[in-house]
Amino acid sequence: MASYSGFKYFNVTSPAPYVAHVEINRPSKLNAFIEAMWLELRQLFNQLSEDSEVRAVVLSGAGDRAFTAGLDVTEASEGGILSGNENLDGARKATKLRRHIAEFQECISAVEKCEKPVICVMHGISIGLAIDLSTCCDVRFCVKDTRFAVKEVDIGLAADIGTLARLPKVVGSFSWVKDVCLTARDFGAAEALSIGFVSQVHESKAAALAAAVKTAGFIATKSPVAVQGTKEVLNHSRDHSVSDNLRYVGIWNSAALQTTDLTAALLSGIQKKKPTFEKL
Amino acid sequence: MASYSGFKYFNVTSPAPYVAHVEINRPSKLNAFIEAMWLELRQLFNQLSEDSEVRAVVLSGAGDRAFTAGLDVTEASEGGILSGNENLDGARKATKLRRHIAEFQECISAVEKCEKPVICVMHGISIGLAIDLSTCCDVRFCVKDTRFAVKEVDIGLAADIGTLARLPKVVGSFSWVKDVCLTARDFGAAEALSIGFVSQVHESKAAALAAAVKTAGFIATKSPVAVQGTKEVLNHSRDHSVSDNLRYVGIWNSAALQTTDLTAALLSGIQKKKPTFEKL
Amino acid sequence: MASYSGFKYFNVTSPAPYVAHVEINRPSKLNAFIEAMWLELRQLFNQLSEDSEVRAVVLSGAGDRAFTAGLDVTEASEGGILSGNENLDGARKATKLRRHIAEFQECISAVEKCEKPVICVMHGISIGLAIDLSTCCDVRFCVKDTRFAVKEVDIGLAADIGTLARLPKVVGSFSWVKDVCLTARDFGAAEALSIGFVSQVHESKAAALAAAVKTAGFIATKSPVAVQGTKEVLNHSRDHSVSDNLRYVGIWNSAALQTTDLTAALLSGIQKKKPTFEKL
Amino acid sequence: MASYSGFKYFNVTSPAPYVAHVEINRPSKLNAFIEAMWLELRQLFNQLSEDSEVRAVVLSGAGDRAFTAGLDVTEASEGGILSGNENLDGARKATKLRRHIAEFQECISAVEKCEKPVICVMHGISIGLAIDLSTCCDVRFCVKDTRFAVKEVDIGLAADIGTLARLPKVVGSFSWVKDVCLTARDFGAAEALSIGFVSQVHESKAAALAAAVKTAGFIATKSPVAVQGTKEVLNHSRDHSVSDNLRYVGIWNSAALQTTDLTAALLSGIQKKKPTFEKL
Amino acid sequence: MASYSGFKYFNVTSPAPYVAHVEINRPSKLNAFIEAMWLELRQLFNQLSEDSEVRAVVLSGAGDRAFTAGLDVTEASEGGILSGNENLDGARKATKLRRHIAEFQECISAVEKCEKPVICVMHGISIGLAIDLSTCCDVRFCVKDTRFAVKEVDIGLAADIGTLARLPKVVGSFSWVKDVCLTARDFGAAEALSIGFVSQVHESKAAALAAAVKTAGFIATKSPVAVQGTKEVLNHSRDHSVSDNLRYVGIWNSAALQTTDLTAALLSGIQKKKPTFEKL
Amino acid sequence: MASYSGFKYFNVTSPAPYVAHVEINRPSKLNAFIEAMWLELRQLFNQLSEDSEVRAVVLSGAGDRAFTAGLDVTEASEGGILSGNENLDGARKATKLRRHIAEFQECISAVEKCEKPVICVMHGISIGLAIDLSTCCDVRFCVKDTRFAVKEVDIGLAADIGTLARLPKVVGSFSWVKDVCLTARDFGAAEALSIGFVSQVHESKAAALAAAVKTAGFIATKSPVAVQGTKEVLNHSRDHSVSDNLRYVGIWNSAALQTTDLTAALLSGIQKKKPTFEKL
Repeated sequence: MASYSGFKYFNVTSPAPYVAHVEINRPSKLNAFIEAMWLELRQLFNQLSEDSEVRAVVLSGAGDRAFTAGLDVTEASEGGILSGNENLDGARKATKLRRHIAEFQECISAVEKCEKPVICVMHGISIGLAIDLSTCCDVRFCVKDTRFAVKEVDIGLAADIGTLARLPKVVGSFSWVKDVCLTARDFGAAEALSIGFVSQVHESKAAALAAAVKTAGFIATKSPVAVQGTKEVLNHSRDHSVSDNLRYVGIWNSAALQTTDLTAALLSGIQKKKPTFEKL
Repeated sequence: MASYSGFKYFNVTSPAPYVAHVEINRPSKLNAFIEAMWLELRQLFNQLSEDSEVRAVVLSGAGDRAFTAGLDVTEASEGGILSGNENLDGARKATKLRRHIAEFQECISAVEKCEKPVICVMHGISIGLAIDLSTCCDVRFCVKDTRFAVKEVDIGLAADIGTLARLPKVVGSFSWVKDVCLTARDFGAAEALSIGFVSQVHESKAAALAAAVKTAGFIATKSPVAVQGTKEVLNHSRDHSVSDNLRYVGIWNSAALQTTDLTAALLSGIQKKKPTFEKL
Repeated sequence: MASYSGFKYFNVTSPAPYVAHVEINRPSKLNAFIEAMWLELRQLFNQLSEDSEVRAVVLSGAGDRAFTAGLDVTEASEGGILSGNENLDGARKATKLRRHIAEFQECISAVEKCEKPVICVMHGISIGLAIDLSTCCDVRFCVKDTRFAVKEVDIGLAADIGTLARLPKVVGSFSWVKDVCLTARDFGAAEALSIGFVSQVHESKAAALAAAVKTAGFIATKSPVAVQGTKEVLNHSRDHSVSDNLRYVGIWNSAALQTTDLTAALLSGIQKKKPTFEKL
Repeated sequence: MASYSGFKYFNVTSPAPYVAHVEINRPSKLNAFIEAMWLELRQLFNQLSEDSEVRAVVLSGAGDRAFTAGLDVTEASEGGILSGNENLDGARKATKLRRHIAEFQECISAVEKCEKPVICVMHGISIGLAIDLSTCCDVRFCVKDTRFAVKEVDIGLAADIGTLARLPKVVGSFSWVKDVCLTARDFGAAEALSIGFVSQVHESKAAALAAAVKTAGFIATKSPVAVQGTKEVLNHSRDHSVSDNLRYVGIWNSAALQTTDLTAALLSGIQKKKPTFEKL
Repeated sequence: MASYSGFKYFNVTSPAPYVAHVEINRPSKLNAFIEAMWLELRQLFNQLSEDSEVRAVVLSGAGDRAFTAGLDVTEASEGGILSGNENLDGARKATKLRRHIAEFQECISAVEKCEKPVICVMHGISIGLAIDLSTCCDVRFCVKDTRFAVKEVDIGLAADIGTLARLPKVVGSFSWVKDVCLTARDFGAAEALSIGFVSQVHESKAAALAAAVKTAGFIATKSPVAVQGTKEVLNHSRDHSVSDNLRYVGIWNSAALQTTDLTAALLSGIQKKKPTFEKL
Repeated sequence: MASYSGFKYFNVTSPAPYVAHVEINRPSKLNAFIEAMWLELRQLFNQLSEDSEVRAVVLSGAGDRAFTAGLDVTEASEGGILSGNENLDGARKATKLRRHIAEFQECISAVEKCEKPVICVMHGISIGLAIDLSTCCDVRFCVKDTRFAVKEVDIGLAADIGTLARLPKVVGSFSWVKDVCLTARDFGAAEALSIGFVSQVHESKAAALAAAVKTAGFIATKSPVAVQGTKEVLNHSRDHSVSDNLRYVGIWNSAALQTTDLTAALLSGIQKKKPTFEKL
């Protein structure tokens, strides 16, 4: 795996072949995000996206207390986007805000755009930006003590970094989505599981991480052509009609089926042994 | 709150600060809808939408027996749209029908377009138009005795006032949606909860109403800028791609973040006291 | 019912008035699909779509072991699309593959395009193409022993015959969809029910088939104008915005409401007797 | 024709059978629009839309000097939307502005939504709102002295009542659209004709009006089922893909072809006499 | 070239290498279309689409008088879709009509779906279906005597076989499109050229055909991978946003650039000799 | 203006207040693009986009002979994307190509995404990438000697850096677009003007540049809030329906109208003097 030692706010390790584990690393502040962190996050996931040594990613938060407490509000209000604009008129403030939000969104969306599947492990405090971030991941696991909340309404704004765009497409009950987004109320692991927001609940963070690494490792043994195509086409599907998506996957596979992975996978099935796939 | 005493078919009260309670008021006919009612409904929700004294709405039906039994079929077949067109050719009948349906849809959609969150409380008979109407609401609660049905197939038509457009986007199982829409079968509160159509089931209408007023009242204590932006953006999200919605919420918040509610909310968090927000 | 005796790979019977039962009939090969089968499937469902003696369809697989084991991989790799192209460059291979996929997709999509509701009964092995095929059906029932899997990743490709386009719109948890599509893991009847992929689970194939025939028969007693309009509009709804769909159903019903089924249905309600509807 | 005498800012006459001529009537102010005018405009075109005595509409401006000079800026800045909001924060101002713009747009869009074709006759000063308004019309004629401009940039705003949404879809050169919208420069009748913005240029207002009445009268002799369907489907086409539009027109005509106009039109062709069509 | 001798209503010849010339062949009836013709047309263009001996197609009409006079109205009204339905209610008539229109549209759209570029040569009477058909072609040439008309309004219907869906996307002036579609008036070659509907006007049918064959032949000397990809992507572009289309062409070319045509084309450029491309 | 001296392949000067002139600067190679150039182009236009000293941009090519001859094919075939992949299978080659194309597209699209209007001045050889690049600009001027061509088909590929996505939305004749894209033929200034691809043709490069600087300078005197909003909304309009765009511009202007530019513009109109606008 390429070097990922240059990141200040993220630990990157490889707990299994072709698996990268990304840990949000600001536990003293409950992994709350400051601007430098989301800029780093973009850079990190862009690198993972093209790193041929990586076929699946696990994302979690360092420390016992929080996946992330979301935006570091203190930093945002002190040196942040909202300060120092007193002399601007409303349109000019809006321009600054629009650019700021767009870049912030793009940084978080880098997790979704990463070509490799990302499994998110949530624990403890998982509020605000935690939801934006986790809805960019492909699969979500959590610990039974997780406290989730779409918290933005409580700090006076509509969530704008992805939650309102993705959450209605991630779970099936619009009544539930509106409830948690409009009230900003907490919800726990059991509710998250029952609504389909997470796929697994574990007793401890260690157990959840182990399960995520196991699933990621399992995915990483499979054809990367097949796996990465599946992620791409499913995300395309979410935002397009069935007919558009059928057309898209047909074009996609007109190249992807020209892979030796097909033969390797078929042979391994016949020979009952593990296939090996070339790098991608 | 502005005066809402002029409505014949709807009672409007204010059970909590900034909360309006709208009651469909034709209990002698199981709250079945005649044309005058949906015209009134549009006018009422358009008024609520811009009434700065209102920050959340509860919608329920008067009487013990029904939220609403849907379209008043007797009225519709006697003086209604389908009568008196014997001499028109098929195209001209179609024109009359199309205009009629379009206006009917627009009246019911006024509930969705209302800028304030609407919590629906369903009880007893809740069939046909009851489903169209409730899918325009943001959150749905019900009483355990509720009898739901997408009943239109049983009177010979495909539901055209919104159920077929919104129900697949309100719950997550398309197999279930097709089942209840194609068979017109009844379903109860437990099934509605398990499929995610409603968010809460209560023992009695009184309990359901109390819960709805409590949730509405809770929402009404929050920043109206944040709450109304959240509703708007979630509805936009349902009908647009993630990338379109990220762009939209960015533009939206470039104005919405220029609110004093942000400071008020942050301060109240620090000072552990309830914030007060300006009218909107 | 018109004659359906000419099909080699499908048995067609009529277990109830206006109900057709289509059975995939290659049990010696676990109902695995070869090209001749999907070509026949298209022809069969196109015929059912316009057969006025048919108002609902049940689709199941012959034999005890499998609804279908999916693509017949042996046939596909021997005489199939991927062989004999050694001398073509990558673009020319892609053209052949694209045309092949497009036709394959169109054949399976014929089940969705069939104007009549289709209830799918799944049992035993139901993997790969089984999922593509079943997501084209309107309602899914299964037997408790069913073993489902989105298996394509395990043979080295992203599923391209419809699963990735339709599955995210058929169930509500995107985390679950990504999990089963990226890992290709098995899942069983209970999981399929709880996630909303199927609507009913039965003890035996016989019981599941009986339930499907009963539901199909029930649907077949209703106005075909109403039923077929409902199917069409719900499928349109999945792929369009709410406002587009309201407009569409308004146009649709401007003709459909000009049916005698409305009166027949209303009268039957008043007279408490079963209505009879003209052919469609 | 129904009575249209109650409108203060619009004269409505009938210069030919089934033709309504709407004249913007505030010549002393160059037909500049105040809020009362656009509210009236909506009411007027909604009425025309369903008036079975009207099959085509001509829209022009009273007086010699202007079709319309656009928004009455004096009124807008004095008693208008931008005044009296000093105490509101940026989000609350935005809410007021958004509601105001939405209603203004809806009023002007009533011309597009009118089911009958509208031919616009432009002369003299035709700037700002004149372009918004005319792009809602189906066909545009003008006088050779017309002075057009997308003037909004010169008063400090992006045009928000329809020009930026419709102009790129009304003419074929995006370079030209950007040029006139970004510079706010004047352009004349010859340029408007050559770019396809108008279809005819006439020597005088009288000649242009006569030509418009003649074309409107000609359209009014044709099947209103055919004409109104054509307008509807063309507008739908502008905003949808070809496949969506083919599907839409198929549904539309499944009712519209059930008209006696077909026979009347065919017979009149054979008999070489003018057909008569029932009201619509 | 494969055999095309089995077609009754179309002559197919090969006037130049890799060029097919399709001639509508019912000159005694002004090449007016009956149902058998459009069914044949679909079959013919589906065959051309996959015929590796064909790289470009010219479409014209036999005889001196007409490209095509459109639908054969006599046949349509006698044995056609509108007859024999007297006993059906409005909804059932609509179903028959909808199916009929959908199949008719699909047949004509086969020209657009044909993977090879199609150049249309229009002369004489070119009305009604002539416009639907020609807007499915990629490039339009005409003779100076051509008489065009979107004639459907004159027979009492909105054009439903493609003109209203495609014409607004084929030329740049919506005012002109509405004018010719609402009035059904004739327009000539000069107007068609100036509006951009046709690309070339010629003195005689022979000259127009020669020019079309020359252009088709020129296209046929180029890389079929490049040419067919260009047609596909341009049609996709018409119906999708720029961002969707950039994504689509990227996927497309990820396979298409793996062609030996790239080298062949580059070498031929350097060596100043004509490249040869493999069949596609 | 900020410093733009660090760019190797682009000269940036300021010929008028608030106007940046960007010159493609590789005249010895006919300004043909190598990868380093498009990477620089992205960086440059991203910087211009947020540079408050810049309100309009002119883009041209250095030297007498070419705006740009497009992709530097020699470099591309030698060290470029297509070399060194011999050992990869078709799917893995496709992945490399897809990533390469996506980044290349993103670099060129930076011109479109630049918030300031860009006027393109084309002269001499303007082929291949010249068209991709120029369709990202807002307004196009050219010199009468310009030789344009959508040249990609002649090097064996479908144009994938934007021409096929944008050209059909930039001019109004789809027949012309298909003609020039499928034949790769040259076209000149007169044809480009008549089809609406360019807005002005000048005798010399100097005259064209002077005209572009004049127009850019004129735009730069206007409210940057109004100008930049107009660019943004027009680009949004191209890719969205009219109703979506009306909604979008309403949200946009709810912030943008809170500018002091409105008052400044109005006052300057009354006082007949030039307004001054704050930086943006």
